[in-house]
Amino acid sequence: MEEVREAIRKTNLKFAEIFERGDAAGVAALYTPDARLMPPDAPPMRGTEAITAFWQGAMNLGIKAATLETVEVESSGGDLATEIGQFTLSMEVPGGDRVEQTGKYIVLWKLDGGVWKLHADIWNANAPAGRA
Amino acid sequence: MEEVREAIRKTNLKFAEIFERGDAAGVAALYTPDARLMPPDAPPMRGTEAITAFWQGAMNLGIKAATLETVEVESSGGDLATEIGQFTLSMEVPGGDRVEQTGKYIVLWKLDGGVWKLHADIWNANAPAGRA
Repeated sequence: MEEVREAIRKTNLKFAEIFERGDAAGVAALYTPDARLMPPDAPPMRGTEAITAFWQGAMNLGIKAATLETVEVESSGGDLATEIGQFTLSMEVPGGDRVEQTGKYIVLWKLDGGVWKLHADIWNANAPAGRA
Repeated sequence: MEEVREAIRKTNLKFAEIFERGDAAGVAALYTPDARLMPPDAPPMRGTEAITAFWQGAMNLGIKAATLETVEVESSGGDLATEIGQFTLSMEVPGGDRVEQTGKYIVLWKLDGGVWKLHADIWNANAPAGRA
């Protein structure tokens, strides 16, 4: 269990690092090949190609950084684990300023070839867009 | 596993029935006492009192019905299960018309005193508010 928690913590750090480099395909590689991405105000998506395109689009819209902080991890053993967490997105707005959006997420993790990967990822904001 | 799936299906039907009666406390009773509710554009909430207040508020805003449809259930055994699903909210707008919002959710289920209950519940819409 402590091992699962540590693997998730490390992958979340990697997510943030890869995101900050603007590497959408690298972010998508942290998900299983048939993972579900469930972004706010968009239809559900599935698979590496769709997930790469989504994160590339987010980066193109000015999202420069995404940090993930675990609140709770649970697992009954086996190859599944669940994570509840909170995120911060940092977005560059016209003029060059940065605004932050905070929110919460649930990720279903799956052991895929010996590596814990995001298998389903849903999130939403803590406040309507335009309000911190 | 089939048993878990069936328990979840029945509780989701019950959720819709109780919701339609406008019974916010009844809806909240389907959650564990320390469940987390993670609604879009609002801070995370926890516990029966907060969950009752949230659903009461949603009902007061004109949400008349909530239907839940399971897409996938997974469990490694033990007292935890995960559900991915899609929802439809039916809202009465000024003038008496009804508009529907569709979206997706993840629920973490927990066996609580022999009964499967919602232990964490997060969702978001498939399109920005105002667009079907």
